[in-house]
Amino acid sequence: MLGAWGGWQVLRRCSSLPQAQRAVRLRVREALGAREPADEVKVQGWVRSVRSQKEVLFLHINDGSSLENLQVVADPSLENRDLTFGSAVEVQGKLVKSPHRMQNVELKAKTIRVVGPCDTWLFPLKTKERHPLEYVRQFPHLRCRNNALGSLLRIRSEATAAIHSFFQDNGYVHIHTPIITSNDCEGAGELFRIETSNEARESAEKTHFFSVPAFLTVSGQLHLEVMAGAFTHVFTFGPTFRAENSQSRRHLAEFYMVEAELSFTESLQDIMQVMEDLFKTTASTVLSKCPRDVELFHKYIAPTQKTKDRLEQMLKNKFVTISYNEAVEILKQASQTFTFKPEWGCDLQTEHEKYLVKHCGEVPVFVINYPYDLKPFYMRDNEDGPQHTVAAVDLLVPGIGELCGGSLREERLPFLESRLQRLGLTDAYQWYLDLRKFGSVPHGGFGMGFERYLQCILGVDNIKDVIPFPRFSHSCLL
Amino acid sequence: MLGAWGGWQVLRRCSSLPQAQRAVRLRVREALGAREPADEVKVQGWVRSVRSQKEVLFLHINDGSSLENLQVVADPSLENRDLTFGSAVEVQGKLVKSPHRMQNVELKAKTIRVVGPCDTWLFPLKTKERHPLEYVRQFPHLRCRNNALGSLLRIRSEATAAIHSFFQDNGYVHIHTPIITSNDCEGAGELFRIETSNEARESAEKTHFFSVPAFLTVSGQLHLEVMAGAFTHVFTFGPTFRAENSQSRRHLAEFYMVEAELSFTESLQDIMQVMEDLFKTTASTVLSKCPRDVELFHKYIAPTQKTKDRLEQMLKNKFVTISYNEAVEILKQASQTFTFKPEWGCDLQTEHEKYLVKHCGEVPVFVINYPYDLKPFYMRDNEDGPQHTVAAVDLLVPGIGELCGGSLREERLPFLESRLQRLGLTDAYQWYLDLRKFGSVPHGGFGMGFERYLQCILGVDNIKDVIPFPRFSHSCLL
Repeated sequence: MLGAWGGWQVLRRCSSLPQAQRAVRLRVREALGAREPADEVKVQGWVRSVRSQKEVLFLHINDGSSLENLQVVADPSLENRDLTFGSAVEVQGKLVKSPHRMQNVELKAKTIRVVGPCDTWLFPLKTKERHPLEYVRQFPHLRCRNNALGSLLRIRSEATAAIHSFFQDNGYVHIHTPIITSNDCEGAGELFRIETSNEARESAEKTHFFSVPAFLTVSGQLHLEVMAGAFTHVFTFGPTFRAENSQSRRHLAEFYMVEAELSFTESLQDIMQVMEDLFKTTASTVLSKCPRDVELFHKYIAPTQKTKDRLEQMLKNKFVTISYNEAVEILKQASQTFTFKPEWGCDLQTEHEKYLVKHCGEVPVFVINYPYDLKPFYMRDNEDGPQHTVAAVDLLVPGIGELCGGSLREERLPFLESRLQRLGLTDAYQWYLDLRKFGSVPHGGFGMGFERYLQCILGVDNIKDVIPFPRFSHSCLL
Repeated sequence: MLGAWGGWQVLRRCSSLPQAQRAVRLRVREALGAREPADEVKVQGWVRSVRSQKEVLFLHINDGSSLENLQVVADPSLENRDLTFGSAVEVQGKLVKSPHRMQNVELKAKTIRVVGPCDTWLFPLKTKERHPLEYVRQFPHLRCRNNALGSLLRIRSEATAAIHSFFQDNGYVHIHTPIITSNDCEGAGELFRIETSNEARESAEKTHFFSVPAFLTVSGQLHLEVMAGAFTHVFTFGPTFRAENSQSRRHLAEFYMVEAELSFTESLQDIMQVMEDLFKTTASTVLSKCPRDVELFHKYIAPTQKTKDRLEQMLKNKFVTISYNEAVEILKQASQTFTFKPEWGCDLQTEHEKYLVKHCGEVPVFVINYPYDLKPFYMRDNEDGPQHTVAAVDLLVPGIGELCGGSLREERLPFLESRLQRLGLTDAYQWYLDLRKFGSVPHGGFGMGFERYLQCILGVDNIKDVIPFPRFSHSCLL
């Protein structure tokens, strides 16, 4: 995340200047990575601990650029009563090699200025305490000052960048698909509806702002398909919404989804390969860019110590593929009793998904070719029977269940026409039928829930702990 | 956009294999960039023109990877009646040096397969016609097959990537700020309200899904400020919304905004420097990554031929800075008559902004230190007088007017407390006041409208022509 800023270069240039020159401002991460001492350095951040001894005053400073703090060593005369845990400080001094084994460098302070004091009595975070995630979730505006959330947000930022890079490097065009849409027919879940806030005027005029009812998007797929008809490789990575009034640890009303569509693609395997590459490339990048942040999760936050090994296995081995038919057979033969009885033609429940992952050895599992009647109209008919299926795929992963869903799309006009007609949707999807009249090509795509992905690689149990603001706990909407 | 795919490498590797091997799939951009001939190549795309001569058949193929088409040369025997403008084809053959001056290579076809025919009679785009943007705007699902929109979307994709890179390279943490928020007090514009679509149940229960009224975000700033209190440098780049029922060429109900916040920042100049760097770095990247696409806009779409020169000037020179006071004086002395009379204490209108830009020589102009009473509560009091101002800045650019807005934020608890109290907002912003109690630091930030930025660098008059789907013309919501 904090790429090559050339902090050290700046430092060197300045250390040859007269002492009267202003000190070089360094971020904590740059200071920690320094390979040479430096005379005039300025570091700004928040105090994570104060330890006052007779001969020396120790501070730990953090500015969010890394999980690790910078140790400041000062003369006790520099202490003052505002210099507490949580206060914001600016320290000037000398960056020197540290005599301690645990750190490379430390900052010998000449001056310490308290920029902003902290009311430690009222501040809900306490020095050196490891607060549980449920505790800090109560303070959506302050929890980013906590180690775990700091790490999470650096990881989330790196993962976001890695996903953009993955697609860019592979020649995909990024598309901002609409957030507000009239498209409500996919059946992907309960929708949020948009109204202007001046409801009185609205109902008096009996009109909608957009002339038709408008909703928050549940998926950018259909819009991406439009674009795949001109660019062959397209992706989007934005917010999607479900109005499911769920207090569960698995769902959010607002979450992020990565979606991609590929044209001239005749096999589900092409789609699965992109899913697998995306999963692995992103995880590898995150692991290499913020190893300490990931380690914090694997060591202290993940419910079991297995998360780290599991992740290594996932990145090393090829993902497993089974058909829906095989999946149902496996479930039927399971010794485990399920709440929902596994039956051909029924959707796989989370309990089933988790069982299948375990059965295959705690590795990611692609389940392909789902029953025709279970899936939306746009999925490609496999024209098989008597158990009629479509070319759909779900990716199930350890600890989570379903992470990705995708399919080949029905590019054949007659198939699509008759299916939409049976569903009474021909008028609503005239534009979608149009796409099949003007140079239609075999294509397919998938979506991946970004928060579930983070949960999977970090071993986080509650989805509300992988978003910047835990606003959907229905009590702390900021 | 289409980075180093190593297409040529693959090609070379394969051309040494036996002829029976499968042909190497190349994108049009890769084929056009090839520096050596190749025997077995496969290109897929859509036909942009068919020219049938007695001895030879010429096709132009485009797959969205570049503005330029690949020329295919074939024996007339390969022609068939489905091979029309708009049809999707797969061509296999030999990539050879072209005898024509206008192109590097051409594809000598061995086979041409029509993957998807095109009903040219119904297809609203016609071969070799330069359709006006207003015409193609009527076909939101097909207009990406048009040259101008193809170029626009490649540019938009590159600009998006460049903005992410700019902030990453400078050590900013990316934050997904909430789209759904209870925050409605900023006064930035009319809000959209969220309801579950099952309105009947909703009103019967007299409850809100989120326990409080919820809206679509107008800005991520306040949430970013939370994060700037832990990470010092943060940014977001996502959709924002205004329910202004405007059919204008300047406004969208849904648009993208880049926002950044910086901590330990005591001067407005720091903020302005980031704005200027962001503007210039992004434009330079776009110019170097898609020169032909930008050229198309500067040559054929921009209302005047000056756009190209103007952009070069903007990138070369330092942006100008004037104070609001100076701006008002300039406007008062203008020979031009304005619809809104310029007066100290009044907001600058678009006509004023455009005049100021012209007055300063058609360069970007920062206007700083606006009247206290004009600006929202969070802007930092300059404690001056009798003309009381806050440390706010707007960036005005040629052709557009306001592109960015920013300020130092009021980090001092007493100032903020008394201002919120006067506005009766103390309860709503308790959490925001909290931030000033626990290690508050001087900070500031800004927002930049992404669509206006694209309009500015490309010279596009109507904002609806720089978005992927022109859905807010109130008639073609997809």
